[in-house]
This record gives sequence, structure tokens and C-alpha cells, in this order.
Amino acid sequence: MKKPQVVVVGGGFGGLNVAKALAGAKVDVTIVDRENHHLFQPLLYQVATASLAPGSIAVPIRSVVSRQDNVRVVLAEAQRIEKDERLLRFRDGSSLPYDYLVVACGAKTTYFGHDEWAEHAHGLKDLRDAIRIRERVLLAFEAAEWEADDELRKGILTFVVIGGGPTGVEMAGAISELGRQVLVGDYRRVRRDDVRVVLVEMGARVLSAFDPDLSQSAQRQLEELGVEVRTATKVTDVTPAGVRLGDEWVEASVVVWAAGVTPVSFVSRLGVPLDRSGRIVVDEHCALPDHPEIFALGDVAAFVPEGEERALPGVAPVAVQQGKHVARQIRRDLRGKARERFVYRDKGIMATIGRSRAVVQGSIKLTGLLAWWAWGLIHVLYLIGFRNRFIVLFNWLWSYLTFKRGARLITARHDEGDATTPVRLRDRPPDPLRHGPAHPGSPRKDPELR
Amino acid sequence: MKKPQVVVVGGGFGGLNVAKALAGAKVDVTIVDRENHHLFQPLLYQVATASLAPGSIAVPIRSVVSRQDNVRVVLAEAQRIEKDERLLRFRDGSSLPYDYLVVACGAKTTYFGHDEWAEHAHGLKDLRDAIRIRERVLLAFEAAEWEADDELRKGILTFVVIGGGPTGVEMAGAISELGRQVLVGDYRRVRRDDVRVVLVEMGARVLSAFDPDLSQSAQRQLEELGVEVRTATKVTDVTPAGVRLGDEWVEASVVVWAAGVTPVSFVSRLGVPLDRSGRIVVDEHCALPDHPEIFALGDVAAFVPEGEERALPGVAPVAVQQGKHVARQIRRDLRGKARERFVYRDKGIMATIGRSRAVVQGSIKLTGLLAWWAWGLIHVLYLIGFRNRFIVLFNWLWSYLTFKRGARLITARHDEGDATTPVRLRDRPPDPLRHGPAHPGSPRKDPELR
Repeated sequence: MKKPQVVVVGGGFGGLNVAKALAGAKVDVTIVDRENHHLFQPLLYQVATASLAPGSIAVPIRSVVSRQDNVRVVLAEAQRIEKDERLLRFRDGSSLPYDYLVVACGAKTTYFGHDEWAEHAHGLKDLRDAIRIRERVLLAFEAAEWEADDELRKGILTFVVIGGGPTGVEMAGAISELGRQVLVGDYRRVRRDDVRVVLVEMGARVLSAFDPDLSQSAQRQLEELGVEVRTATKVTDVTPAGVRLGDEWVEASVVVWAAGVTPVSFVSRLGVPLDRSGRIVVDEHCALPDHPEIFALGDVAAFVPEGEERALPGVAPVAVQQGKHVARQIRRDLRGKARERFVYRDKGIMATIGRSRAVVQGSIKLTGLLAWWAWGLIHVLYLIGFRNRFIVLFNWLWSYLTFKRGARLITARHDEGDATTPVRLRDRPPDPLRHGPAHPGSPRKDPELR
Repeated sequence: MKKPQVVVVGGGFGGLNVAKALAGAKVDVTIVDRENHHLFQPLLYQVATASLAPGSIAVPIRSVVSRQDNVRVVLAEAQRIEKDERLLRFRDGSSLPYDYLVVACGAKTTYFGHDEWAEHAHGLKDLRDAIRIRERVLLAFEAAEWEADDELRKGILTFVVIGGGPTGVEMAGAISELGRQVLVGDYRRVRRDDVRVVLVEMGARVLSAFDPDLSQSAQRQLEELGVEVRTATKVTDVTPAGVRLGDEWVEASVVVWAAGVTPVSFVSRLGVPLDRSGRIVVDEHCALPDHPEIFALGDVAAFVPEGEERALPGVAPVAVQQGKHVARQIRRDLRGKARERFVYRDKGIMATIGRSRAVVQGSIKLTGLLAWWAWGLIHVLYLIGFRNRFIVLFNWLWSYLTFKRGARLITARHDEGDATTPVRLRDRPPDPLRHGPAHPGSPRKDPELR
């Protein structure tokens, strides 16, 4: 007899936990992902700020489950489903039959109707995003080193982070630290105070998911690192040259968008009820009300706990617990038992701001050094694989002791052949605000140069 | 009084050693490089075969010389020189004046008149090359996992390496090991013997720079790893589907070109005498005969030792020693002393073939395990920076003990949006040899799939 086919779309925290919790079960599990690796997203901002190598926070999905006989992995992107035939379709028309489908494909960056900003305001959802931000930040410093005019140099070294949630706070703190503490020493002309980092939040305070006193602490810690925090401030335009905040124009080299995510497009093609944020409405078992064989979890699911109004947030612990829960429900189905209600056990939330700076809100509240240690410990523990844990720990220790960063790599492609000045701060407009030469190949402003 | 300006084009082994050996000298040194990092090229093949992360063998040029006050670094690509005005020009017309110019910009892959092969036969000279090869190799395994037909699967898992020098030998051994020992366990359908690696050498033996007995040993060690070694074999065509070796057609997913290098194009625009290989003809001081203020070294220079006919080979020790020599000559010039002749101290050559396999030819000859240890020791010692040494050693130890690879990352860009099957083995022709679906998004051949 053919075993029940469990198809899991997405190898993130949710999907992997479904597969792993089905170890030994009499089912065939297929994980479908468009990337070959599971990504530890909470540390993605450290790749974007040259602290960690991309490979240190990623692990091939295949190798995570290689010893689990009932799991196979497909590198492909799911296109849509046929609910009646219970088929997952790929773009070329091929398909994969399922008895259970678990939709766990996560979120992408959304610009809330301003898709034209995407080109200039960089999202941070995958390794490509992180590598691109890293290159832009490092290239800004290269360009600044060649700008003799102090004012223009400050414009080049202005970085704007939009969105005051954990990702935005962590990015702003890390960029400020990278610029003011790490890079400055390697450049001859760049001064510490040339580096300007602006964190923009539409709401009244940063880290709105935390208690107000922790938001206040986070803002103070950010300001100690030299970050300008602008709360209650709305972004009205993003261009290659900077951002407009209401009436104020802020010239900037690099703009990071950490203001919002929405489920990936596959979800909108499922033909199932979605909430206002585009997330799949699920019942108390994490399944679709009309299709108990389809589960949704993590960032793509709107799970509203009993008696509450708001859905659970899109954080890793929710996805992990839901993944294990879904696997348990499939096992119960197979044994003919009734399904259980999913109950989220909230162990707390945390965000890091920089060296020795963080906030933690759980059964106790922590700020500063202690919070920072707690943050580091928990993030290392949740990393998958001994090798990555060791490498990340070593890199952190090394960075802590030396004030250096181990991953300051620019590998941007340049023109074929080698006849050109290759590496430039792309997308800068021709002199919008009397801006100087923006790439290091044209050091006209250097008085030592003819 | 203005100090003499020393402009060094290239931050490789040669250029960095010029700058470092000028520490404390009363000159201003400017290193111009189109990359922000110095690359330890001898280990590049390990990035291409997922053993090491790109950042582990690269270090920002800036941070190498950050404590040396008389050195600055420019991220830019040199375009040409004006010898009379002593100016190094960039493409946009800006320029850098020099009193001494050191041309140390290295080599690029050459296809000996078959530039049309470049698209399908991947060179290995920089991190972009290495990352591309890594992705192609890993994607081939993904495609193979979905090919139900045994014969077609073997075609997908055929890798051809062209060129039997150290790079080709190291690549062939490493791909074979990666496929047959490491990856096989993570796939459900791929078998060890599905993996075919063919090393093609036009000459009579591999590693022709070594003594014949070591060439023989290397070939035997390669064959033990499952590599097919084809000596005295000429490549007559390279297409997206494979290579033609004389009358024989070999279907292959990935073709690596390690058959030749030539100086980067900047060298051909200098307007100075070049040898048949396009290298700058230098005198016994490593300078241009007509322009003693211009030095050339490493892969771009044709330095013929006294009494010999052939120029020194393009290997790291030559560039390192020439770099130090050039710095010494500049110091002697400044003190009014006569220049010295450059004498290369050949400490030997080595190549690794795989786990516990290598050949070393120096004051003694070694093969096998002992040669492998010597190879590893020397390569770690020559890496720049404690952090990289530690990380590389740790990764090697980990790979040795676990038979795993730490950098199996595919970060190839896919189409914007997420509506498509993203990751495909690109450039495969539509069914040239009744070939099956070549990307894992279209698993038509899988009998379990409809």
C-alpha cells in the first residue's frame, strides 16, 4: 500500500520542523523549496553588515534531513495547487500529488503599494538581499574615501533604515557600528562623524511589540551608537538619491526597507480565504477550515488564538511550534484520533542593537549587556548544525575582541572584460543635488589627483 | 617636499608584497585594484567545490595595510598609462600621477582564440567564477536527483575539466570527491557510479611542470578517486551540452576550463613590448628596459632568469619574491644605490589531488598522505590573517572528520517575483541528445509523479 504523501512547501523554520517531527512516521515527506538551503533569518542582518559569511547561517535542506529515510527534497518553486485532485503544480505543468499539503513558504518584502521603491529601498529576506546590502554599504565607504568635500562625503555616508521593528533596529545598530567603529580605521579620509544612520518608524515608538519601557531603552541604546531615531515619521518618497520624510529630504547612499512583509505570491494563487494582510486564514488546528488536508503555518498563516483578536506574529518560534503541531496532527489523523487545538507558548521576544546592547522581554525583562548575552546564547542554540554554531561563535568572539568584521567582501559582477572602471555605486543619479562623483574610479575631487 | 608616489596596480601576491615591503619608506604608496579584496587563489578551487566559503580565502586589501601609514587603497580599474607624463588613467579621464608604477594586475582566463567557449567552459580566476562553478555543480546534482533514466542521469552527472596543470588536477579531484563521497549520501537516487569526472590534457602527461614520476603518481591518485584522465587529447569543441574530444563526444553538465591564462587587458594597453604570451618583457631588475620607473611582476611579467630560455612560471612564490625585490629596488633608488638583479629562489612546487592525496616536488619529492599534509600546512601558513587561517583549518578538520562540505550554497538569482520555477541548470539546450528535463522544477521523468 502506498504511504500517505505529505508535501511541504518551504524549508524554513516551519517546514523543516514538520518534516523532522514526522521522522519514523509511515508517510513519505517531500520538501519543496526554491532555495537549496534553510536560512536562519534572525541573523540575516549580520550577513548584510559583514559580520557573518552567508554560508554560516545557511545549511542545505538536503543535509538536514539526509538521515531521515522518509523525506526527500525537491529544489523547485511551487506554482499553484489543484485542491480537488490534490496536486501541487509547477510552472511547466508537472505536478506532485499530495495527501497532506503544508504551506510554509514564508514571506517576502512588501512596499505597501509603492513597488517602485523596491529598486532603491533594499528588502532583507534572503541571502541575495543581504549580500546586496553588504556590497552597497561597503561601496559607499569606498566612494566616500575619494570625496574631498566634507559635506558631500557625509551625504555619501548616510544610511537610512525604514521600519522600527526588530529587523530595522538591528540593521540600524549594526550599520552604525560597522561604519563608526570598524571601517573608519581602514580609511584615510572618512571620519567617525561622517557616518550618519537614520532609523525611520511610522509609529510612535520603535519595537512596538515590546513594552514601552523597552522601546525607550532600545531607542536610547540606538542613540548611544550614533543612530538618529525618527519615530512618528512617514516615508513619502524613495529615490536613488535618498528618501523624503514628510517635508524633509534626506540624501542617502543606501536605503534599507524593513517596514513590512507579506506572504510570497504562491499563497495568493491558492484560491483560499486570506486575511487583510494576505495571510491564509486557518482554524484552531492550523488547517484550512474547508480543507483539513491543507495546513498553513508561520508567516503565511493568520492564526488567531482563542479569545484574541490579532493573529500570531511572524516570528520563528511560532513557525517552529506550528510545524511540530502540524506533524502531530498528521500522526493523529493516521491513528484515527481527533485533532488538537494549537496553543502558542510565548517564551518572549528579543532584539539586539549592537555590541553589549539588546532588549529581552519574556518572563523577565533585560536590557544592555545581559540582554545581549541572552540574545547571543539563544541564537547560537537555535542555529542548525554544529559547524555553523562553532563558526558563528568564533566569528562573534573574534569580532568582539578585535573590533573587526570577517566578511567584508564585494563580489558584485562588473562589466565583462577589464577595460572599465568596474565597481561603482550604482543607481546614483547624475548630480541630483550637486553630488560629487559617486564611484571610486573617478576620484576627481581628490586634491592630490590631477 | 612631496614624497615619491608609488602606484601599484593590483593587490595580489605581488602588489601586496611591494606595499608591505615599503613600510616605513619615505614614499606614498597607492594600491589600485578593481576588487576590494586580496584573493588567495591557490585555494580558489575549494570555494568552487563547496569546501570553503568565499570569505575564508579573501581579505579586504584595505585591512591588510590599514596600519601602514604610507599606503592608501583605491577601488578602481586602471585603464591605461601615459608614460611621458607618468600618469595612470581611469576610464572617466581622471588620473593618478606616479614616480614609480608597479604593474602587478595578474592574469585572466584565455581560450586561445575560442572565446565562444567562455560561456560554457567556466574559467576559475576570481570568486565570481568559483561561486558560479559551485552553483553549476550543485544544480547538476539537483537535476540528476529527478532523472529516473539511469543513462540520462549519468550524462547530467558528467563533469569535464580541461587542462591538466595544478588547477585542473585539483578541480578534477575535488569534484570527484565532492560528488562520490560527499553529496551522494544526501540524494535518494544518485549513485556513486553515476558521477563521472573527465580530466582532459593536451600534452602527454598531467602536471607537466613536475618530474614524470610525479605526473604518473598524480594520474594514479586521480584514477583512484574515480577521475578519468585523458592525456594527449585535444578539445575541439565546447557546447552547452558537452565537449568534443577529437572524434568523441562527451556529454557534460559542467565544463571547467583550466587550460590557460593570459595577462589582463590593461597590460595590452600599456604600449610596452610583450612576449608571445602577452606578458611584459622585463629586465633583470623586474623593470621595463626603457622605463626603469615601471616595474612588472607576477603573472603579467615575462622574467627570464639569466642563462635560461623560459620565463618564470605564473605561481604565487614568484610574485611574492618579485614584489619584495621591487620594493627593495625602489628603496635603493632613493638612497642612490645601483639596482640588484632578481634571483628566484625556487622552493618547490606542489599540487593536491584530494583527501590524503598530493604531490610535492622540492628539495625532496613526496606523494600521497605526507605530501597532502605538507600541502595543507604550507597553504595555511601563506593565508593572510589569523581569522582566515583558523577558519580554513577548522573547515578542513571538520570536512576530514565528517566527510561533509560546509559551503554548499546556491545563491543564484532567479526571476523577480516568485511565480516561476526558479533554479534551473541554465544554458542546457532543448533536448540535444534526447536529454531529459534538465532542471528540478520539471520532474517529468519521475515515475512517482504524474
